Order: sequence, then structure tokens, then C-alpha cells
Amino acid sequence: MRAFVVVSHTAPLDGDFPLEDLPGGAGRLDILCRCVVDSFLISHGIRRDVVLHLIIRGEVVVTLDGGRLRHLNPDERSTAALLRRALALVPDLPPGQALPATPGISVRRLSLPGLLEELRAQGLSPLLLLETGKPLRSFPLPPHPAFFLSDHLDFTPDELDQLGVLPAVSLAPIALHGHQCIILVHNELDLREAGWIGG
Amino acid sequence: MRAFVVVSHTAPLDGDFPLEDLPGGAGRLDILCRCVVDSFLISHGIRRDVVLHLIIRGEVVVTLDGGRLRHLNPDERSTAALLRRALALVPDLPPGQALPATPGISVRRLSLPGLLEELRAQGLSPLLLLETGKPLRSFPLPPHPAFFLSDHLDFTPDELDQLGVLPAVSLAPIALHGHQCIILVHNELDLREAGWIGG
Repeated sequence: MRAFVVVSHTAPLDGDFPLEDLPGGAGRLDILCRCVVDSFLISHGIRRDVVLHLIIRGEVVVTLDGGRLRHLNPDERSTAALLRRALALVPDLPPGQALPATPGISVRRLSLPGLLEELRAQGLSPLLLLETGKPLRSFPLPPHPAFFLSDHLDFTPDELDQLGVLPAVSLAPIALHGHQCIILVHNELDLREAGWIGG
Repeated sequence: MRAFVVVSHTAPLDGDFPLEDLPGGAGRLDILCRCVVDSFLISHGIRRDVVLHLIIRGEVVVTLDGGRLRHLNPDERSTAALLRRALALVPDLPPGQALPATPGISVRRLSLPGLLEELRAQGLSPLLLLETGKPLRSFPLPPHPAFFLSDHLDFTPDELDQLGVLPAVSLAPIALHGHQCIILVHNELDLREAGWIGG
């Protein structure tokens, strides 16, 4: 299993935004859409062994489970429409309960430390994607990694404090977009699992 | 210099399409938008040493030059609006002449063999991105590669015939989307140029 956690600082906590202005009126929801698409979609197929958590403003988590995900297409607009159905449930979220939105997508109130604890309890090993981390290609990865990455803004000091001391890996000598990082991680794991490279 | 050539079989040859239905009414223009974004954009920056050619239906080439490109944002919709300004010029294209659309983007009538010849004359070395190619990570790349890739449809036998015998490289044990391939190629070149890996 592979998990990704994208920390979003600006996405909306309701469904009241237009699909015509994802970078503006929807608080850079375009970033999350690209992370969703590239977490799950390959050419003519979907990665079933992936779970993606979008944690928004440190208080709400939208979880996408590749094993049950449906209706996901590669374009941003239709992906934003899927996420909007989940975000529209946020204002009425009962405490401590997840609500299903569409197949494979659910939403709940959960903090960053709460999500971290949950992942560990599920047997996943959290890692950070950071420019200052160690190069991924020579990094020995755990069997079930969960990669934390941030949106267009850096992790805040509070977030880094909440995440604690985690192994940090770096993908490139330049700063990349979130979805680009996800693609590179997938490729590294694909190549290792297929025996194209060691690791 | 790095060049990419995306062969599109379905994109429109005019600007008469809605930005609300890129996968449908705009002939999978969403695919080309993602290829544009990931050819040029990194986090908070643009790759200036890249040229991207979109060859549409074997007869029209939209060229994007990173050295002069402006107004490019990472979301699909605004990228589609940029491409639409170029495609709107197609019906009135004078023979043998390129028309500028917006800074760094031009459009002209040109065939696949014509484009191949032009790239070679510019000192670029054409390569194919193909699932059956040799693994990129151990492939010695020329100093100025030009990577040819296809959209959601395979290269046709005619296209492969026109391209002739080219070195073919493969990126993964699974079929990926075009923009995902571009990101992986960039990363391989970034790491080699920065000395993170050999090659």
C-alpha cells in the first residue's frame, strides 16, 4: 500500500465555489485536483493500492481510497466537481464521524496529529517530502510508506512540530509541484517493485 | 535545451470550443494542457530551456518556447484559454508562415516529417517515448534530446513510419499519461545535470 497526505492551507471548507475559478475562488483547489489525478490515474487505468488524504486547514480530512474509487477522470474540472461533493458535506459533519461523498471518497473532521496517529496504527510509515531531505533514489523505503507533502505553501513551523521527527526525502535539485512529486514517488516505487532497479 | 513533441490525434483545429468541456467538446485538449504545464512549470518557476511542439492531426504545429513564454499558470482552464488563442488562428494560417499568438506561443502548418527535419536541423536528437523502449534511467542521452510522445492514442503505423528508426526509451513498467512522462524525463535530466546521479 502507498499513501499520500497533501497538506492544504487554502482549500475551501464548503462546496460553495465555482468550477470556473479553481485557482482563485476555490482557494487553489486546482492543486489538490492534480494531486488526486496523479495519485490514482495511469494511462487507461487506476492505481487501486493507493490511499490519498487531503488535510485542509488542519481540521478536515478528505480521504480517497483507490480500492473503491469511481468516477475519476484525468481533467481538473471533473475532479474538482468530485471534491466539491465531499467538501459540501463539511459544514454538517457530525463530530467524530466520517461521511461518504461518492464511492471511495469520504470526509471527516480530523487534525494533523490525529491523522498521523491513524496512519501509524494502520501500519504505514510516515515520511516527509522536503527539498532538504535525502535523495529518494538511494533511500531505502519502508514497505508501506505514507508521504506527507505540502501545497504551494511550505509546511508551517506548527505543522512540522506536529509531524515530529520523520525521515525526509527529496526528489530533485529544484522545487516541484505537489502532483509532480507524487508522480516521481510512484515511478520510483513502480521501478523497484518491478525489479527495474534496486532499492 | 530539451524539447518535447506531443502528437495529438484529436485536438481541435480552430478556437471554437468551450473551456468547460475540454475532454469532450475540445477533443481531449485537457491532455495537451497538462503536457504544457508540466513541460514548463515547476514550483514558483518556469523552465526556460524547454521547447514544446504540439502537432495536431499531422498538419498543424503549436510551438511553445520557454524562453519567451508568459501568462502560463498551472491550472488546465487558463492553459486551455492560452492554447485556444493559438488554435483560433489556424483557419486563417497563411501557407508556410508561423503566426504569433501570445508571447512564446506560435502556430503554423507543418507535417510530422517536416517537424522532425526541423528539429534535426536545429541540432536536436529525436527519441521516442515508448513502452517497448529501453529503460531511461540507464540510457545515455544526447545533449539536446527531443522526446516524441503520443496522446491518449498510440502512434499510428503511418506516424511510426514517418518518424523512422529512432532510439526508444521507456519510463516505467506501466503505461503512463503524457504529462507524467514529461515530468519523469525532466527529473532524470535534472538529476543528471545536477550530478545527483550518473548518466
